[in-house]
Amino acid sequence: MLPIIIILFIFFLSTTSNAAVQDFCVADLTVPAGPSGYSCKSPENITVDDFIFSGFRQPANTSNTIKTSVTPAFSSQFPGINGLGLSVARLETQQGGVVPLHSHPGSSEIVVVTEGSLIAGFISSANNVYYKNIEKGDTIVFPEGLLHFIVNAGNDTAKAFFIFSSSEPRTQLTSLSLFGNDLPANIVGKFSFLDVEDVIKYKKLLGGSSSE
Amino acid sequence: MLPIIIILFIFFLSTTSNAAVQDFCVADLTVPAGPSGYSCKSPENITVDDFIFSGFRQPANTSNTIKTSVTPAFSSQFPGINGLGLSVARLETQQGGVVPLHSHPGSSEIVVVTEGSLIAGFISSANNVYYKNIEKGDTIVFPEGLLHFIVNAGNDTAKAFFIFSSSEPRTQLTSLSLFGNDLPANIVGKFSFLDVEDVIKYKKLLGGSSSE
Amino acid sequence: MLPIIIILFIFFLSTTSNAAVQDFCVADLTVPAGPSGYSCKSPENITVDDFIFSGFRQPANTSNTIKTSVTPAFSSQFPGINGLGLSVARLETQQGGVVPLHSHPGSSEIVVVTEGSLIAGFISSANNVYYKNIEKGDTIVFPEGLLHFIVNAGNDTAKAFFIFSSSEPRTQLTSLSLFGNDLPANIVGKFSFLDVEDVIKYKKLLGGSSSE
Amino acid sequence: MLPIIIILFIFFLSTTSNAAVQDFCVADLTVPAGPSGYSCKSPENITVDDFIFSGFRQPANTSNTIKTSVTPAFSSQFPGINGLGLSVARLETQQGGVVPLHSHPGSSEIVVVTEGSLIAGFISSANNVYYKNIEKGDTIVFPEGLLHFIVNAGNDTAKAFFIFSSSEPRTQLTSLSLFGNDLPANIVGKFSFLDVEDVIKYKKLLGGSSSE
Amino acid sequence: MLPIIIILFIFFLSTTSNAAVQDFCVADLTVPAGPSGYSCKSPENITVDDFIFSGFRQPANTSNTIKTSVTPAFSSQFPGINGLGLSVARLETQQGGVVPLHSHPGSSEIVVVTEGSLIAGFISSANNVYYKNIEKGDTIVFPEGLLHFIVNAGNDTAKAFFIFSSSEPRTQLTSLSLFGNDLPANIVGKFSFLDVEDVIKYKKLLGGSSSE
Amino acid sequence: MLPIIIILFIFFLSTTSNAAVQDFCVADLTVPAGPSGYSCKSPENITVDDFIFSGFRQPANTSNTIKTSVTPAFSSQFPGINGLGLSVARLETQQGGVVPLHSHPGSSEIVVVTEGSLIAGFISSANNVYYKNIEKGDTIVFPEGLLHFIVNAGNDTAKAFFIFSSSEPRTQLTSLSLFGNDLPANIVGKFSFLDVEDVIKYKKLLGGSSSE
Repeated sequence: MLPIIIILFIFFLSTTSNAAVQDFCVADLTVPAGPSGYSCKSPENITVDDFIFSGFRQPANTSNTIKTSVTPAFSSQFPGINGLGLSVARLETQQGGVVPLHSHPGSSEIVVVTEGSLIAGFISSANNVYYKNIEKGDTIVFPEGLLHFIVNAGNDTAKAFFIFSSSEPRTQLTSLSLFGNDLPANIVGKFSFLDVEDVIKYKKLLGGSSSE
Repeated sequence: MLPIIIILFIFFLSTTSNAAVQDFCVADLTVPAGPSGYSCKSPENITVDDFIFSGFRQPANTSNTIKTSVTPAFSSQFPGINGLGLSVARLETQQGGVVPLHSHPGSSEIVVVTEGSLIAGFISSANNVYYKNIEKGDTIVFPEGLLHFIVNAGNDTAKAFFIFSSSEPRTQLTSLSLFGNDLPANIVGKFSFLDVEDVIKYKKLLGGSSSE
Repeated sequence: MLPIIIILFIFFLSTTSNAAVQDFCVADLTVPAGPSGYSCKSPENITVDDFIFSGFRQPANTSNTIKTSVTPAFSSQFPGINGLGLSVARLETQQGGVVPLHSHPGSSEIVVVTEGSLIAGFISSANNVYYKNIEKGDTIVFPEGLLHFIVNAGNDTAKAFFIFSSSEPRTQLTSLSLFGNDLPANIVGKFSFLDVEDVIKYKKLLGGSSSE
Repeated sequence: MLPIIIILFIFFLSTTSNAAVQDFCVADLTVPAGPSGYSCKSPENITVDDFIFSGFRQPANTSNTIKTSVTPAFSSQFPGINGLGLSVARLETQQGGVVPLHSHPGSSEIVVVTEGSLIAGFISSANNVYYKNIEKGDTIVFPEGLLHFIVNAGNDTAKAFFIFSSSEPRTQLTSLSLFGNDLPANIVGKFSFLDVEDVIKYKKLLGGSSSE
Repeated sequence: MLPIIIILFIFFLSTTSNAAVQDFCVADLTVPAGPSGYSCKSPENITVDDFIFSGFRQPANTSNTIKTSVTPAFSSQFPGINGLGLSVARLETQQGGVVPLHSHPGSSEIVVVTEGSLIAGFISSANNVYYKNIEKGDTIVFPEGLLHFIVNAGNDTAKAFFIFSSSEPRTQLTSLSLFGNDLPANIVGKFSFLDVEDVIKYKKLLGGSSSE
Repeated sequence: MLPIIIILFIFFLSTTSNAAVQDFCVADLTVPAGPSGYSCKSPENITVDDFIFSGFRQPANTSNTIKTSVTPAFSSQFPGINGLGLSVARLETQQGGVVPLHSHPGSSEIVVVTEGSLIAGFISSANNVYYKNIEKGDTIVFPEGLLHFIVNAGNDTAKAFFIFSSSEPRTQLTSLSLFGNDLPANIVGKFSFLDVEDVIKYKKLLGGSSSE
């Protein structure tokens, strides 16, 4: 009865021969990328482990200033998702922890709370704020590219998953962008309406060089 | 000091006037949809609750034949994600539970295990199977449109989140497609290589009409 | 009178200089691909034959178990279509021939019957079957990623063209995915609702390894 | 044994309830369209015939000046392909027939010759011409938006299918654009390098108004 | 000689009949929009003026706090660009003027300086600042979604065009998002690392409600 | 106070480590391109000058047959725009100058007049002409892929910017496509309805080889 299988393989042989079938494009970080993602790893080197990420097994260390840790599973860490327009990260945040205001250029985000409660919200380009205290079992969506924040105002540690519509989401932290780089303080004051002395104060706090 | 804010609003007024700013397109299910998603709800009717879904607060009932329940947060349930190319669902499965073989046309999926362990895998178009026993803290990706399955072979209830690269993922269950509809049994036998008597047997099991 | 042409070439020279003008991206299968397709062949090596495929000149051999042959003109065979989101294949099927149930992840398909008649249909994710006996001069569309099948129930050989919205469509054959690989029979039984003995029977028929 | 099927339907019920499942978006031409295509017909009105087009059953009438007829199966004629990025048309052309020089903005095209032979080619933006005499069984691709032409220089009627990467391809015929509308002849002469008297001559031939 | 033109029109008649040919989708702001843009105006109501915007004829009034005015030509003002993924705006800024730090979610931007000189720059997600003093005849690009700013540090009025890869770009002004809305000051302090008294100070300046 | 900044960098370290963060994909013209654009330059070699183009500082030489010059800022000249779907060019045209009839396959265009006045228009696929005399401060849009033209019918030099929805727009000049290449004159006559003697005349004028 083997003929059937043999024939069936012939049936669609030309699409599976020496060329990649393009069912997936596992990231190869060693060759140049393009605008749509990393180049594809050669099919013969792909194993099931390219499609699995185990980085959420261990709890993260949240003993830091913001009492918060975010563990990403992006295409750099999880090569099987390259080109699929999807990724995930895990949030762990102690009581009083915070995810500072930031945006993800080119990506939307859904938050799924799995433990504790969180004040979570986003700001629209019309400057309306959509925020609420959400708890375990709730999800909130932050539409593409808009500023958003999370504060653990509850009495316990909180955990959540962040889901992104990009395989390699980028993060732009507002206060770091304002104060944590080498932009002259007077330019920052100019484009932010902040007093230059305040800019210098926060540059010191956030690691920016503070030359006026 | 009000002048600044007044001027700033004038600065970008024309984009926020009577027309939608298109920061988001909350689904309005009452008017016709288009190929890229549901039509947008009128901005003045949008509230923070359009961006929040609370359907994961309560556990699901898994007392069914497959000992498994999937709770979706798609754009039909969660209108704020319409057009964002992203959604999520929750899996709960008892010991011995199963998510039958299926595909999601037009969508990739990441599974994040939050409790228990699961045998999870997908089948490529070259007919290679990529599967593994994954546990709490692991994720696996099923590339766009490929058949995949999950079996709870562990000793406990398992839970996971399913993340999709579509706001309204569709699900095509293989055995239901084969046996659970009104296709004549001889046609099914013909295109599946199954004996017609087997087709009829499984049509009875899975609710399909069994006329030859 | 040459000045005009000389000036005209200067007019848009910078877009045609040493860099590819990107009118087309003929597939180069010898360097790594990316998520959006194969890399582009160097322009100076491109000839008219990169844009022509002659593989439909000869009839195919349909003396096989399914009495059917499909000849693809995908970007692996027809490098000029790389990146254009379009390809074609030819079907030839004897009386009683069949195209087994399958899907094309990420691609829609139009069938154009050029000879004979065919029972052709697809199954929606709501498990409705849309099928009909179509004849020479008819076309049917199978929307993206959905399971579909073709049976030659007529009295003659039938021929058709398959048109795809992808330059390198992939094919996932349902019965091969179920039975034609090395998945343990008890897992297949579990996720398909089939009795394990039936799974083992069809694994033997379709070339899968049959260890439980 | 009915429980299984009942449970299975519950399993994915929420995606199939009152909202469209978006497996397809059959064109509804009676309500406003959007940038991505026509609005979707209400699911309860959809039948298998929305996915079938039978307009290629009858031969076309080629007794016209160009001895050629093109029969389209675009989303206007074939509503089931709306939003799928794919369509087809049939060419019939007598000996000496011609498909005048034209482009399809936003769409690539593959030609599959099914009878006779054709001189077919396209012109790149670097002004290179890629053309060849192709015959039954050959295909040629015209990359997106580039000018192309077909001449039946053989001894017989020729037939072909045109395959497009758009559900509603548009056609811009070069000579009609130059001469077949109400543009003043002196403007046409100016932007085409043609003598105004020639413009007027061809305006008369091709139906354009010929005021200078 | 009319036959040619008559035949030619028949040749592609079916695509131009009662259905929109989809050469363009001029925005109709009176019916619901979808995720890909506004609905299309009925073809018989479209005139050349839908494709023309004359709002840059008159100089803008820059007598405001930021000594700057931006005049948009987005699809709300310029309906012919709906769905084309492209728009433009004009900048006029007096000596000492500023375009405050902001981002455009989902859109890249090119600035073309037409008069004067400007300090212009953007901040990457790795917190590197790319900025320079650019002058008349220079362009700078701000990649999709990243924070950017412009300061007129020259001795004269400066003018520029802003070019966007979106028909309806949105603008999120950083300091307004931080201080110009009704978010409680202690939450803003928390997610921005700013002292609450500073937050309250700037809320007063920028029009936000200042309840802690 | 340094801890904050240190922790913040750890917070999103994994996305900025050795892999490109994909904020931008500056074109590297020395390695193969793909269908979505040029490959990305290695991040450590990127400077602010990759995002700046200064080619509009000097006036162009318009002493040519068409009294017109177009200076492009496409990704070949302006590598920072690679993959962003946006580019710009500058038009300078003397009194009586002309931009010959042409299309941009795969790109829409907005024209912004900055000096003088221009007759500008496009031709739809239904063969309607949308054109008008526009002046300084006006913009006009040419929807994707449609033929368009510009004539300087005013009394002065005119200037404009051309804005494209592609990083590497291609240009297909109609009269050059018809007459400026090595297509045999009788084929051109056939597909254009022009008399062969006219074709030969214009081939001589526009640099095409004139063998019949």
